[in-house]
Amino acid sequence: MTGSVPTREDHVDVLIVGAGPAGLMLSTWLSRCGIKTRIVDKRGTKIFNGQADGLQCRTLEIFDSFDFAQRVWRESNHMIEICLWNPDENGTIRRSSRIPDTIPGISRFQQVVLHQGRIERFFLDTMKEHGNLTVERGVLPVSFQFDETKAGDFDDYPISVELRTLSDEESTPSQRQQHHKSVDGQETTVNDGLFRSNLVADDTDDLIRLTEANHADQTELIKAKFLVGCDGAHSWVRRQAGFKLEGDSTDYIWGVLDIIPITDFPDIRHRCAIHSASEGSVMVIPRENKLVRLYIQLLATNHENGSKADRSWITPSIILQSAQRIMHPYKLDYTYCDWWTAYQIGQRVGDNFSLRERVFLAGDAVHTHSPKAGQGMNVSMQDTYNLGWKLAHVVKGYSEGSILKTYQSERKMIAQDLIAFDHRFSRLFSGRPAKDIMDEEGVSMEEFQNAFEKGNEFASGIAVNYGASPIIAKEGQIISKPQLATKIDIGKRMPSFKVLNQADARPWHLQELLKSNGRWRVIVFPGRLTEPSNMQRMQMLGKRLEEPDSFVQRYTPPGQSIDSVIEILTVHPGPRAGIELLDIPEAFHPYHSDIGWDYWKVYVDDESYHEGHGQAFANYGIDPSRGASVIVRPDQYVSWVGEMDDYEEMSRFFAGFMRQQFAAKGAVDGAGS
Amino acid sequence: MTGSVPTREDHVDVLIVGAGPAGLMLSTWLSRCGIKTRIVDKRGTKIFNGQADGLQCRTLEIFDSFDFAQRVWRESNHMIEICLWNPDENGTIRRSSRIPDTIPGISRFQQVVLHQGRIERFFLDTMKEHGNLTVERGVLPVSFQFDETKAGDFDDYPISVELRTLSDEESTPSQRQQHHKSVDGQETTVNDGLFRSNLVADDTDDLIRLTEANHADQTELIKAKFLVGCDGAHSWVRRQAGFKLEGDSTDYIWGVLDIIPITDFPDIRHRCAIHSASEGSVMVIPRENKLVRLYIQLLATNHENGSKADRSWITPSIILQSAQRIMHPYKLDYTYCDWWTAYQIGQRVGDNFSLRERVFLAGDAVHTHSPKAGQGMNVSMQDTYNLGWKLAHVVKGYSEGSILKTYQSERKMIAQDLIAFDHRFSRLFSGRPAKDIMDEEGVSMEEFQNAFEKGNEFASGIAVNYGASPIIAKEGQIISKPQLATKIDIGKRMPSFKVLNQADARPWHLQELLKSNGRWRVIVFPGRLTEPSNMQRMQMLGKRLEEPDSFVQRYTPPGQSIDSVIEILTVHPGPRAGIELLDIPEAFHPYHSDIGWDYWKVYVDDESYHEGHGQAFANYGIDPSRGASVIVRPDQYVSWVGEMDDYEEMSRFFAGFMRQQFAAKGAVDGAGS
Repeated sequence: MTGSVPTREDHVDVLIVGAGPAGLMLSTWLSRCGIKTRIVDKRGTKIFNGQADGLQCRTLEIFDSFDFAQRVWRESNHMIEICLWNPDENGTIRRSSRIPDTIPGISRFQQVVLHQGRIERFFLDTMKEHGNLTVERGVLPVSFQFDETKAGDFDDYPISVELRTLSDEESTPSQRQQHHKSVDGQETTVNDGLFRSNLVADDTDDLIRLTEANHADQTELIKAKFLVGCDGAHSWVRRQAGFKLEGDSTDYIWGVLDIIPITDFPDIRHRCAIHSASEGSVMVIPRENKLVRLYIQLLATNHENGSKADRSWITPSIILQSAQRIMHPYKLDYTYCDWWTAYQIGQRVGDNFSLRERVFLAGDAVHTHSPKAGQGMNVSMQDTYNLGWKLAHVVKGYSEGSILKTYQSERKMIAQDLIAFDHRFSRLFSGRPAKDIMDEEGVSMEEFQNAFEKGNEFASGIAVNYGASPIIAKEGQIISKPQLATKIDIGKRMPSFKVLNQADARPWHLQELLKSNGRWRVIVFPGRLTEPSNMQRMQMLGKRLEEPDSFVQRYTPPGQSIDSVIEILTVHPGPRAGIELLDIPEAFHPYHSDIGWDYWKVYVDDESYHEGHGQAFANYGIDPSRGASVIVRPDQYVSWVGEMDDYEEMSRFFAGFMRQQFAAKGAVDGAGS
Repeated sequence: MTGSVPTREDHVDVLIVGAGPAGLMLSTWLSRCGIKTRIVDKRGTKIFNGQADGLQCRTLEIFDSFDFAQRVWRESNHMIEICLWNPDENGTIRRSSRIPDTIPGISRFQQVVLHQGRIERFFLDTMKEHGNLTVERGVLPVSFQFDETKAGDFDDYPISVELRTLSDEESTPSQRQQHHKSVDGQETTVNDGLFRSNLVADDTDDLIRLTEANHADQTELIKAKFLVGCDGAHSWVRRQAGFKLEGDSTDYIWGVLDIIPITDFPDIRHRCAIHSASEGSVMVIPRENKLVRLYIQLLATNHENGSKADRSWITPSIILQSAQRIMHPYKLDYTYCDWWTAYQIGQRVGDNFSLRERVFLAGDAVHTHSPKAGQGMNVSMQDTYNLGWKLAHVVKGYSEGSILKTYQSERKMIAQDLIAFDHRFSRLFSGRPAKDIMDEEGVSMEEFQNAFEKGNEFASGIAVNYGASPIIAKEGQIISKPQLATKIDIGKRMPSFKVLNQADARPWHLQELLKSNGRWRVIVFPGRLTEPSNMQRMQMLGKRLEEPDSFVQRYTPPGQSIDSVIEILTVHPGPRAGIELLDIPEAFHPYHSDIGWDYWKVYVDDESYHEGHGQAFANYGIDPSRGASVIVRPDQYVSWVGEMDDYEEMSRFFAGFMRQQFAAKGAVDGAGS
């Protein structure tokens, strides 16, 4: 505490510190789920240019689940192809290969580039629309208290955080402005991103000291159930929790330019990795609005491990000249520079992601690495995409608090994988190309290409595979039967293929049905319903689901729509015209007295008129004569695969972590209660 | 004139009366082109529910050219299949066939349904964003003068219109409210659309009389170059011009309900045409937000030709009961009704669409018909989509005024086709089904299905084929060579297939490159550029285009970007990796000293990584060893097809109607000047 008494006090379910992509993803999730949330950021404005920009396929899938991927898809630059450039036998750079930027077939989206400011804008718009939540800017947390005795009761508020509203001056970082004289003699003023770079010190502590001296009357005390630090590499929340980042820095310093290039380099609108013979490397990232981002190797320094390089000598001209040397004999210049910065590569992972499942850390607060692989913003947002629904379910009392332990078990592994990937990739990219097979100090360009291609799968975000836990039935009490859906990986996100709505024949990507609204889904893939035995299994399953103590009924709070906690979706193997919706039991398309049957629950794997055949059963590896059922988490990850009508096992799965919403009326089925 | 002196005066290029879809399409076009425009509407608010709702593929293509089709595509209900229901041998209705609602392959969009209010919202948003134009609501034109002596000079303002701002009361139509008691006894208040139906009189004349009596001090005098009446079937502008509608009414009265249906009718989420044995017909149109629109035949009246039926007996209950009789034995009810109305089918076409090419009529002001075919809003918007760029080009001095004559020659034919289609379709749909082949008074269900299937092509909007004129080179001085592109029809809209950007490999539908920004396009499809003879032809054409008196240079005002009036696009037959962009002459990807080469002008017909192969050359019927060039109007209609390097003929084509933007510096090429 700062020693004086705050003038206001508020109780919230979740307090989020930091409104970058990780914080905004979390606040978007929580506002969709109706959780009382506040989100604060010490900066006075959002970002307008520069910063992170690459978006994985998986990130776009997540955006689509919040209904704004189409805005990104339209505005962004789509990255289609990667060209690798290496020195030839004369030491002159030449294109050695072309590879697809996104592995074909891996997702319905491909990797795109759009600057962080627009992504933040889309989050802010959707938060405004759903839940009317806004970011409190120029607001700094200045004290933290945690009452461990209250940590066991999820209805209690063990966390106290004092917030101070900054003056405009305090919340606006001082930003150098560079004048760069271009070839035609024009002077341009360029935004300098160094103030957010890891080459400068953070100002949080100075601001807190100022508070202690002068501003105690402008503070507010927040009592929170949960606190989430999305406050970057210098995380104040991390320090309050007593955790630290582990790892080290490399010697490489890189410059970054966002420019409209004037160049005869033929692949300037492709993503390129250019290794010169001895002048270093450049990565080319074509962007929106005719911009191109260049990551340019400046030089190797020899500081002590972890120390920071002097930055005063770095200017856009210095960076450009390095690029010109590397890309020679091609010409490169510009008259318009949108943004620039410089950084030193460091790779660190947090030792802990959570304090008693009450304080959580996400994004740069628990992992920092180089930006060139385009991963940082993605992994950060996926941290809080993992966390958001879990917090919401615990706050609402749907789930036991135990599910919160899976945040660290699932995400720390991802952060470690990321750092390992980045470490290897950075070394290969920053190294001098080998002259020949005998040149052991040089980097083999074949090895680099291999790493790039393998990296592509990792970089798509699709490879994420969560380990066994109460919400991933891989081992332990409840074990999936993966042989029933041979191409669905338990622990990975549900793959998506096109299916047709049974009632109106409209094609949908299955993933479009899995919106991020906090619902668990049981997706039933029955065998062919034209065979009476399969229809009979559907009828039996429907009957169990409709019983008053079924897992759908018991975990849904009284008065709420029956699909609001666990939604049942059906995809049958067709043909569409071989069956009428009303032949299928009502449990699979619930009836409401005011609006009739629900026409948006039953789908079919059949040919569409205009968009081909999704071949969903074949692509999921499900036998259309036998079927299967799949339980999918609210974040689209697959929890369980089993027999289509294995009601008992589904029930046991949910009983492992869900909380019954009413007193049992009679016999309780399942094993977990 | 009203006899008193208006207090204000303004000069505008175009005054639009009526802010329905036709008026908004026009104002959107003009605001994109930077034309000084005002648009007024006597109603105080836009539409919020009901009214027209069906959107053709072609309309979506047009929306996409203005960058808002994706909003419609996401919000709308997609119509995939049509089910036809007829009486069986026992007189019970049964499904007789299923047909695709949109003919597969005809467009990259399919027909969708979204209510007019949302469409108007998207127009208003885009007008606000591009040009900051807004609709002046509650404003009525009360007097009109036309100075014929000024009609020859397109820089002059021959039109004077006095506008009066209405009071809130005057601009809000009196609307009946109905209480409908549903099955469960709840009472609901339902919006009644009869106030806009053709069964009630228009109030314009009353409002004008009021003006004459009391309100002369609230008027404004507008001097306009052009006046466009988009003011509906009772068009005030049409009466000022002295024109009239020709045609008549049928005896059929139809009711319309927009409800969330509670029904066991299996095809309620498909578009259906239901003919009962003797109770009349129902058309089912599934809509957005769980709504379904039902068009329900009420009865045949026997009034004098053209007279109006008494409407006092029409209520939602009466309409529902008719539907229940027709759809028996299926049950139909609702508790939520969003909107309802009733109308009598009438089919009329205007005798003139234009007064001296200074006053124009569009939409319902020149054609009225039944709403069931989902055509009205589409054809109305396409009227002004045809007119908008022509007005803009004449106002800007790019084109001779003579191109304005093509508005009537192109659109009157469409209106007549529409009325003929609607006449035939309405008769077949309203008639009693034939009991057997001997039942000559009945309607043959085979004939109905044939008409429906044929109607589908017409109803897509893709079939529109404009006749020969100075801007459609089908016959006369300049004749296309259709054999060079056998699947491109001169006079129809340019078909669309996927092509890849040469510089970054991104796939685009060709039509996405043809945005509605007022530009003419020459699309050059060279033969394979790996053959030296084809590259030589490109070089020769490029050289001609860059000459200071080329048609691209001479029609572009000095100081404007070289692609701002006539844009050159290239699609070559590939392979993409066989050529570098900078090998192609600069005329096809112009260089700018500040931003380098233009990377968005050259495309290639090749396989993409993620979206297949567009096979553009094959689909356009162009020989990849010879090539072709295509001139496309600013509204995407094909003007001319010829040899890829026939510069002389292209130049003659443009000389037929374009105005040179600077004094000739030397010899002038082409024949038309």
